[in-house]
Amino acid sequence: MTIYEVGVVAQFEAAHRLVGNFGPAQRMHGHTYRVEAAVQGRQLQADGTLFDITRLQSAINGVTSALHYQNLDEVPGLAGRNTTAEVVAQYISEQVAPALQGLGLYQLRVAVWESPQAWAAVVQELGT
Amino acid sequence: MTIYEVGVVAQFEAAHRLVGNFGPAQRMHGHTYRVEAAVQGRQLQADGTLFDITRLQSAINGVTSALHYQNLDEVPGLAGRNTTAEVVAQYISEQVAPALQGLGLYQLRVAVWESPQAWAAVVQELGT
Amino acid sequence: MTIYEVGVVAQFEAAHRLVGNFGPAQRMHGHTYRVEAAVQGRQLQADGTLFDITRLQSAINGVTSALHYQNLDEVPGLAGRNTTAEVVAQYISEQVAPALQGLGLYQLRVAVWESPQAWAAVVQELGT
Amino acid sequence: MTIYEVGVVAQFEAAHRLVGNFGPAQRMHGHTYRVEAAVQGRQLQADGTLFDITRLQSAINGVTSALHYQNLDEVPGLAGRNTTAEVVAQYISEQVAPALQGLGLYQLRVAVWESPQAWAAVVQELGT
Amino acid sequence: MTIYEVGVVAQFEAAHRLVGNFGPAQRMHGHTYRVEAAVQGRQLQADGTLFDITRLQSAINGVTSALHYQNLDEVPGLAGRNTTAEVVAQYISEQVAPALQGLGLYQLRVAVWESPQAWAAVVQELGT
Amino acid sequence: MTIYEVGVVAQFEAAHRLVGNFGPAQRMHGHTYRVEAAVQGRQLQADGTLFDITRLQSAINGVTSALHYQNLDEVPGLAGRNTTAEVVAQYISEQVAPALQGLGLYQLRVAVWESPQAWAAVVQELGT
Repeated sequence: MTIYEVGVVAQFEAAHRLVGNFGPAQRMHGHTYRVEAAVQGRQLQADGTLFDITRLQSAINGVTSALHYQNLDEVPGLAGRNTTAEVVAQYISEQVAPALQGLGLYQLRVAVWESPQAWAAVVQELGT
Repeated sequence: MTIYEVGVVAQFEAAHRLVGNFGPAQRMHGHTYRVEAAVQGRQLQADGTLFDITRLQSAINGVTSALHYQNLDEVPGLAGRNTTAEVVAQYISEQVAPALQGLGLYQLRVAVWESPQAWAAVVQELGT
Repeated sequence: MTIYEVGVVAQFEAAHRLVGNFGPAQRMHGHTYRVEAAVQGRQLQADGTLFDITRLQSAINGVTSALHYQNLDEVPGLAGRNTTAEVVAQYISEQVAPALQGLGLYQLRVAVWESPQAWAAVVQELGT
Repeated sequence: MTIYEVGVVAQFEAAHRLVGNFGPAQRMHGHTYRVEAAVQGRQLQADGTLFDITRLQSAINGVTSALHYQNLDEVPGLAGRNTTAEVVAQYISEQVAPALQGLGLYQLRVAVWESPQAWAAVVQELGT
Repeated sequence: MTIYEVGVVAQFEAAHRLVGNFGPAQRMHGHTYRVEAAVQGRQLQADGTLFDITRLQSAINGVTSALHYQNLDEVPGLAGRNTTAEVVAQYISEQVAPALQGLGLYQLRVAVWESPQAWAAVVQELGT
Repeated sequence: MTIYEVGVVAQFEAAHRLVGNFGPAQRMHGHTYRVEAAVQGRQLQADGTLFDITRLQSAINGVTSALHYQNLDEVPGLAGRNTTAEVVAQYISEQVAPALQGLGLYQLRVAVWESPQAWAAVVQELGT
């Protein structure tokens, strides 16, 4: 039983602040966010791909370009939520998942790095 | 069924030597060790976090700061063992796991890079 | 139930072109390929290793050195296939897997990065 | 005529916005800033150092820790200025230069990366 | 006498082969090229910039996007030359220098990395 | 007046300890050392190179392979000196400089990174 995966890396630069008991992270600050998104499936297609990686790049870039140079706490869909790295990863995952359903991919993983030293990730199932 | 993960990166610089049939690694040498530690769970808390990442950073830094600028073969808990990357990863994992029990996290992964070209990792279960 | 992993990173620089509906990737172009290869098992040996990492390095380097400074589309075993990152990862995985059978390792993962922004990976089972 | 240099890398995560004709950078956003600071001199001391690198680290960390998790546009010394990468580099350089005068070092270079793709740097003379 | 610098990083993925006594580099192969381009000047403008970094990014991206997914030996301006990293750096430098004249910048540096282990650079004067 | 440069990156993993007022660095410890070596000249040769980069790689690798998996304080040429990053850079520079004389190169720069956060460099003149 072999598993195949393709993944892409994207980036955006944004401000945010956390609400709650988060010490200095309660202040307005920002990050150069690095996003890794990967899909998994069990079979390569005849053209040697699991999935056209440029479609994955487009899907991710569509989301990250809307977050770039923004205050995350004002972005529709994130406003009113605590914009932890977990929540940002979940948001990106939810935004791109619909375009990845029914394509033979069973899983999507989105990791969001706030810095080179800290990340959060979400792994969700896809309908193959 | 969604999985959430948070992870941190730490570093320490240490000497060691291996005992056994390890060629040049039997000589005293050293590495800039990079440590990646991640925990996984199935549910975000109300504040949008899986787990307070600063607690994970503190737990890991507590261990790595005790290894920094040391000869690993003289560190209590490692002395007398072969300080392979696997053993160092296992040691760090065992040191931090107790503080991560009973917090809704089901798994801990610790990866130890001896150089940008070689790593070992340990994945152990946690009691949620 | 603990899992152990060791991994190595290798590199090669090669040309290729894709056949099919791949836009500019249909033109002759090239990449500095980064390869990550990791094996997993459930038990450390008495010497503190899962598996001698220098044997994994040798196995991977044997394959990547044969791909270095080549046109992938002319390499025996790849010629006639579409040299997507998925196929290159599968090829490397198939080349090194035989040397990793029967050694207590249950899984091999090979990831191939075409650039710092795009990768494909293959995970295959090994006979322990 | 030989030149010696020692350098350190630091980091901080902050928000800011630019004033003027800067397109999307006029919106509140943020970066994971990477700072490289280096000093140059013409002679090593008897202990084999140009300059105690831990003193350089302390000087830089003193400045970057005050910028960490802040809105740069509200930091005294930066408030009221346009917080371009050039200005941030100049600010850091001016903050640390006094502690580096009269120590046999003739030059200080501070580079500030707003992202892995864009940096600004300032090179200023020191009194040896 | 203070010096200011701004720099950007770009990337392209291309094939080429060298002509002459270059061993395996005489075969068709390829690289993920990383380009660093920086300009230097002696004075910041009133808006806190040395030079609008988005103009530098546009100038560089204009050149690198024309090299992306190409065989460098067939690109007009490079065809018929030996596409060493030095020559590629010189080519990029010559392409972007005209747009950088007369803007108070006295120097342009273009570095071209063929891999994370090897680079060539060209430093040329600009008319301020 | 144009300047050309070619550079290579190498690596070695070694132990050492400092003698003097160096705090924890007085203990036996180690690093994954990263070495950057670059030469500069004013003219490209007819084959489009400043200097055959594989000769520079060989020269550097000759030195770094002799330091790999060693205690630097026992290496002839370093034993008896304080193995600061400055001294290690100077040692490497002195070892490779003779092979680079009389080749149209006027300068050699060797940088030694003890970790991703700290480096020392030596710039020495070459006879062209």
